[in-house]
Order: sequence, then structure tokens, then C-alpha cells
Amino acid sequence: MGRTLTYPKGVSNTANRYKHRATYDLGPIHRIINDSQVLHVSFNPGPEDPFPAIIPMIGQMGSFEYPSASIDEPLECYLHGYVSSRIMNLARKSDSQGLPICVATSKVDGLILSLTPNSHSYNYRSAILHGYASLVTDEEEKLWAMKMITNSVLENRWDHSRVPPDRAEMSSTVILKVKVVDGSGKIRDGGVSDERKDYDNKQITNNVWTGVVPVWETFGTPIPNGDGTVSDVPDYITSYIANKNLQNRALAEGAVKVALPAEEQH
Amino acid sequence: MGRTLTYPKGVSNTANRYKHRATYDLGPIHRIINDSQVLHVSFNPGPEDPFPAIIPMIGQMGSFEYPSASIDEPLECYLHGYVSSRIMNLARKSDSQGLPICVATSKVDGLILSLTPNSHSYNYRSAILHGYASLVTDEEEKLWAMKMITNSVLENRWDHSRVPPDRAEMSSTVILKVKVVDGSGKIRDGGVSDERKDYDNKQITNNVWTGVVPVWETFGTPIPNGDGTVSDVPDYITSYIANKNLQNRALAEGAVKVALPAEEQH
Repeated sequence: MGRTLTYPKGVSNTANRYKHRATYDLGPIHRIINDSQVLHVSFNPGPEDPFPAIIPMIGQMGSFEYPSASIDEPLECYLHGYVSSRIMNLARKSDSQGLPICVATSKVDGLILSLTPNSHSYNYRSAILHGYASLVTDEEEKLWAMKMITNSVLENRWDHSRVPPDRAEMSSTVILKVKVVDGSGKIRDGGVSDERKDYDNKQITNNVWTGVVPVWETFGTPIPNGDGTVSDVPDYITSYIANKNLQNRALAEGAVKVALPAEEQH
Repeated sequence: MGRTLTYPKGVSNTANRYKHRATYDLGPIHRIINDSQVLHVSFNPGPEDPFPAIIPMIGQMGSFEYPSASIDEPLECYLHGYVSSRIMNLARKSDSQGLPICVATSKVDGLILSLTPNSHSYNYRSAILHGYASLVTDEEEKLWAMKMITNSVLENRWDHSRVPPDRAEMSSTVILKVKVVDGSGKIRDGGVSDERKDYDNKQITNNVWTGVVPVWETFGTPIPNGDGTVSDVPDYITSYIANKNLQNRALAEGAVKVALPAEEQH
């Protein structure tokens, strides 16, 4: 199509700070969500509680209606949880629109060590979504979402485990479907950025080391449970781990080398 | 003293699921917060917005009044932010009690690959705090918090950079102080846990590999900015990175070996 789909910019999802780092494009936002091992999901427990709640959940973006939809097309966010958890009870009791929630995730890709504490930063990717969450009641859609979420933890794991889930497993698991209203992402990459006044001061530049420490998630050698009869770690696991380790490292180290116009850095 | 301080258990911070993994002790909760590179902070933007907001922030637990307080004693949560951000404006406008917020963080320590998707899990450490946030107005306390937060990104970095911050830097930075009302933590460690019905089924155990893939954060080789005159990476940076890499890996691999009574696993 050649058209980039973007989320509408409202008060609640528009960046006020470092606007050049913000994105409203569906693709990058969905990718940040799907690359996350854990999402932080916020909701309001009720009028008697002054504090918003946050719980860690596992989730993925996808479209049950259009399963072949690509990452930069409109998708729903599917979240996995336990049947009697507070957020599930609230979503069950909410009106037809669903429970208003916020989904957030952040990943640090590097430490930006600059001349002054003030210009220190991280290379990072973060994203938020606002939307209305309701329980998936269609069995086929639920199974589809469970498979997608399991495979997001480890590619192809679903078909290599004991499936389908039995009756008890299906009823103890609840899938929340979030109809996304808006979203935004922020990506910081590149190197150190300091102000001219410090940068021109030899006394400072002679004493402070500046640079970037790349940071990435490493998957270690699988530790077998030891009780099963499958002794060798299967290929789909070792190759997933090897690929992820290469990708994660390349992303963190590659982010440092992105050249930005000087005035857009910091 | 020998006494373990705990947060009060209320509706909003008490675990309903996997209770044996929950902790209300100040020490472990504060440690999880302080080990986090990023905290997710939730607040309600106002009556016109149905969605709670979440923003990623950097923060640390500490006590300005009793700087020598240990990690398992009552502490405040200090969060670093930009002067005109939405949360800062709300905290500035809030009543004397402060803005009700939730602080959350989660770290995955391993993938738990069991026989069925249903018993898949992560080894992880997560924590939340509820509290009232207000702006730090005392200059001495603000500077103390800024130093603590900078040093949480990289040990001893503050004294090795151009300090103190100048007037403009001090006024563009805002520190939020969260008076903590309650909190809780969850820690999952150990190995795979499956149900007897699957575990006793040879057809399943002959086909599904089970075990744990440890996951940890790796700090890579520092990439110098290249413009400064300090060419060698200083010792305090290389030793911090080396120590962190050893600790992070040992924690993720060590978590797998924790032996739990069988009925407490899963």
C-alpha cells in the first residue's frame, strides 16, 4: 500500500519532551510491544482505591479476524492471565466497551555516559497503548491467542509441547483482548550528546570519559529438568537462543552507531 | 534489631495467586526496585481521561532524613524527571498529600519450559509500590537524590562527571519523592513444575523437552565517544560492568537451582 498507518495524537499519548524521538506509527509501536517479555498493564481498581494498579503480564499484538495482517496494520493486544485475578474480574464486570487500561513496555539498549549527569541518558525503546480490555469468549480465538502468546516466549514452542490444553486448563486461563484507542512509542539511539559549554571546556573533557555501554538481554545455556527422556536440547530451542543472542547484541551495539544530526541528539 | 519490617497487606497489594511467591518485606521489595534500570510509573491524568497513564522513569529508594538507613528499613522512592512533564505538573498541582501513583518493575530471570503451555512460566522478580508523590523543593535533598539516581545507572559516575549541576540544569530537573503507603513483591525461582497427569504420561515425556533457559542483562564493551581526551575506559566503569555481568548471570543461573518443596512449585 505504501501508506504508513499512525495512531491519532491526543493529549494522553502525545510526547511533550524529545518529540523527535516519538513515533505514532503502528509498525514500530507494535514491534516494541511484541519484542517484550513482560508488559506492564495499568487499570483503576475502583472508586474506593486512590491508586492505579500495575500488573506484569505477557501479551502480543495480533489480529484474529485478519491473521495475515502485518505488524504495521491495525491489531489488537492480547494479554494472558489467570481467571480470578483482579483485572480479569474487573474486565468481566465492565460495560460492553471494556475496561480502560494502559499497556506499557520499555527496554534499555545502552547507558549514555556524557560529561554532565544532566545529559546522561539511555538508548531505549518504549511504547504505550491505551485501549479497552474485554475477555475473549470465543474458544477458537482464545486458543489462537494462547498459541501466539506461548510462541512469543519461545518460537514454535506450542507445537512442541502437550497441546491442545484440556478443559481445566482452558477454563483457568483467561485472555484479555484490548481494542487499541491510541498509542505511542519512543526510541532513543545514537551516541553521547553534550552541551557546547562543557564540550569546549578542556578541564572537563580531559577528566570525564564519555561513551556508550551497550546493554542487551542474553539467553544462557538451557538447563534440562533432568527427569524427562528428551536429553538433547532440540534444535528449535538452541537456534532460537543463538539467533536472539545475536540479534539482541547487534541491536544494542548498532543503536550506538546511528548518526543523528547534532541538534537532534541528547 | 532482628525484626523484619513488612508493608501492610491491603486489597490493592495482596497477592491472590501464587501466594507463596509473594513478599511484603521491605528489603526484597526495595532491592528489586533499586536493581531496575527503568521503573514504570502509573497515575491518573484527570477526570476527562478514562485511561491511567504509564511512563518509564529512573528512580531509587533512599532516605534523606536517615541517609545511613539500610535497604530493609522504611525508605522513600525518588523518581527523576523533566520539569514540564505531565506527571510533574500533576504532582505540582496536587494537594498537600501528593499525587497517588503506582511504581512497578519486573525482571525476567529465565524461561520455564514445561510439558504443557499452561505450566510454562518465567523465573522473575517483580515489585510494586503505592504512594503519594510530591516535588522535592529542598535543594540539598534534590542534589542528594540526583546523585543517588545517577550512581544507580553506573556506580560512582556522579563524582567522575562534571558536577555540581549548574542553575539551568537544577531547574530543568525535577525529583519526585514518593511517600510509600504499601508495596509487594513477587519472586519466582526454581525449575520446571508439571502436573502428575502429564508427568506420568510417557508419550508426552518422550516428546517434550523441559528445562529452564536462564536470561540476564549483559553490559557490552564500552564504545568511546571518540572526541574526548580520556582514551582509556576508566577502572570504575570496566570493573562495574565486569561485576554486573558476573552477578546478573549468577543470579539467573542460580535461580534455577533453588530447590522448592514440590507442592510449592509451578
